[in-house]
Amino acid sequence: MKTSKFAVFHSKDQPFTYETVTVPALRAGEILVRTEYTTLCRSDLTTFCGKRIEKTPTILGHEMVGCIEELGPDAPKVDCRGAALRVGDRVTWAIYASDPNSRLARMGIPQKGGGLFKYGHEQIRPDNHLHGGLSEYCILRRHTPVIRIDQPIPLTVIALINCSVATVAGSLRLAGALKDKNVIVAGAGMLGIVACAMCRSAGAKNIIAVDINDDRLATAKKFGADITMKLGSSDRSLQEQLAAALPGESATVALDYSGVPETMEALVGALGIGGVLVLVGAVHPQRPLQISADQLVRNLHTITGLHNYNEQDLVAAVEFIEKYHAQFPFESLVHDKFDLDAVNEAFDYAMKSKAHRVGVRTISRAAKG
Amino acid sequence: MKTSKFAVFHSKDQPFTYETVTVPALRAGEILVRTEYTTLCRSDLTTFCGKRIEKTPTILGHEMVGCIEELGPDAPKVDCRGAALRVGDRVTWAIYASDPNSRLARMGIPQKGGGLFKYGHEQIRPDNHLHGGLSEYCILRRHTPVIRIDQPIPLTVIALINCSVATVAGSLRLAGALKDKNVIVAGAGMLGIVACAMCRSAGAKNIIAVDINDDRLATAKKFGADITMKLGSSDRSLQEQLAAALPGESATVALDYSGVPETMEALVGALGIGGVLVLVGAVHPQRPLQISADQLVRNLHTITGLHNYNEQDLVAAVEFIEKYHAQFPFESLVHDKFDLDAVNEAFDYAMKSKAHRVGVRTISRAAKG
Repeated sequence: MKTSKFAVFHSKDQPFTYETVTVPALRAGEILVRTEYTTLCRSDLTTFCGKRIEKTPTILGHEMVGCIEELGPDAPKVDCRGAALRVGDRVTWAIYASDPNSRLARMGIPQKGGGLFKYGHEQIRPDNHLHGGLSEYCILRRHTPVIRIDQPIPLTVIALINCSVATVAGSLRLAGALKDKNVIVAGAGMLGIVACAMCRSAGAKNIIAVDINDDRLATAKKFGADITMKLGSSDRSLQEQLAAALPGESATVALDYSGVPETMEALVGALGIGGVLVLVGAVHPQRPLQISADQLVRNLHTITGLHNYNEQDLVAAVEFIEKYHAQFPFESLVHDKFDLDAVNEAFDYAMKSKAHRVGVRTISRAAKG
Repeated sequence: MKTSKFAVFHSKDQPFTYETVTVPALRAGEILVRTEYTTLCRSDLTTFCGKRIEKTPTILGHEMVGCIEELGPDAPKVDCRGAALRVGDRVTWAIYASDPNSRLARMGIPQKGGGLFKYGHEQIRPDNHLHGGLSEYCILRRHTPVIRIDQPIPLTVIALINCSVATVAGSLRLAGALKDKNVIVAGAGMLGIVACAMCRSAGAKNIIAVDINDDRLATAKKFGADITMKLGSSDRSLQEQLAAALPGESATVALDYSGVPETMEALVGALGIGGVLVLVGAVHPQRPLQISADQLVRNLHTITGLHNYNEQDLVAAVEFIEKYHAQFPFESLVHDKFDLDAVNEAFDYAMKSKAHRVGVRTISRAAKG
């Protein structure tokens, strides 16, 4: 009998505990994955510190990678790209599984589809566990989009695909073609930095990274930002800084990963005619934005929100990482010092440090990868 | 020498006067049109009553139709659909001409393109006149999208194409596919009524017309609305009315032609996940909308503004009218009692009456059409 150890999150004031369960028999359409690496996403940290309330006990972690250990009955024979799925293959997968025939899935929003299941967000129950990244094994549910990755890409980098990179891919899909356009990227955290690199690879003209922190802006430069702008109480407005940096030009796309109302409003003001603002960062309740409808109409602006991503975005994320990962210092974004036994230490470090991501290696460091 | 009489608008407190000029020689790319019919658009009325300030003196009127009188040197030989343009052809055309190579035109927004010229919005100057609908002749400038109309459609209906119908076509383009979707149409004025008919022809599931006025809602029903909802201070909220009318369903598209902040905010609240709100009506300064960014993100909502329309929308508008005009009582929307000599009376009537459009016939009633 195979067993899986996992770290259990109870509540913000309790340390993680460990449990070991017998890996259950797979049900129709399921795939058992030996988890290799999990990076702690911002949403894991907001749950950890009590800012977001999830049903507990739970297994946190959804930004992850692993290898197929077993294919259940009627498990998919091919991945989203049509490549065969075999025992031993390294795979990434969407953070959700949902009914592909539900109305929202058919609308291209499977991440809100019927029967939604989300890795790293489910309560542990006797009949439903092994659904988070901080575990030796994870069971991929039926209808989970899966992608095989054959290239020798570092685990720390592959782990980023199925949350950070795929979400950014979704925001770029909503932004439309970026070639020769000026793009503002607000919030130079993990998503903003990935966005700079993806905009660079998509042929953007000027990539303008915006943040309140100089260190983060310096990192954005390493990931393709051409221009950085600091937004603080003593700094000039975004519009003034843009006019000075790019006289006579305007920005056609703005991507917000900051979630800060003042910044999102400044982005609307900085957009040229026909501009698109994609909102991603605003996932917590906050004061409403003040949006001038007549300016939106006369400037033909679009404001569009994105939460999570769809299968097409996951494919785009994988293809971006496969093609461009070596061109940017992605490995430097992940603090890679913790193993599954040290989940408490990993979260403590993540809360205190400025690391873009803190990783948890869930497989022996002697193993491949 | 051909002459053209036109009505001159000076300012809100002055009556229209009439002038007659010699029709000038056409320049490269120009087409002379004998104007047949002009309907007074809401924006003509807002200029007339001083709510909007344009450079004057001017020739108002842009929602119009006419026949080709003369093709200038290097005038286009074919229209937007590839049909030949010949003297005597009845045509409609865009309300703008702009440089097709300008950045915004190439972005699909020619209505804001370089060197923008707008019919019915230009100052009369010795070297620049015959650019509005309340005139016997109109000169179509170089780069004006033109479409030939061969079908025997009433002039009162063809006149509506190049502002009302084309603008609605633009908003439907931004809304995406409507088939089997619930669509809310807010503001049952001319644009809202046309929108009901276009949504009906596009296969929408339920079309919900929203207004503060019972008569307008009754008209919307004649143009394809399935359900009407009155929004007034004493009425239930839009969300409550929707829940009662369509239990368990949601609206995926909302089209706002009302321009009323409270209504636009209610539309956001009424949209289901993945919903799109297209703003068209908000063309005058008003209080900012209060938009919850986190709701926009979690619901994957899109809010997009449209002002005027592009060539693709004009073609869609013509094709809609050609195919469906007889299925809806479009002629009943236009009060057809005034001739070019009675422009003062036409505007007075338009301000006082509840007619959706007041028309001005600019060619003898004995003539064809």
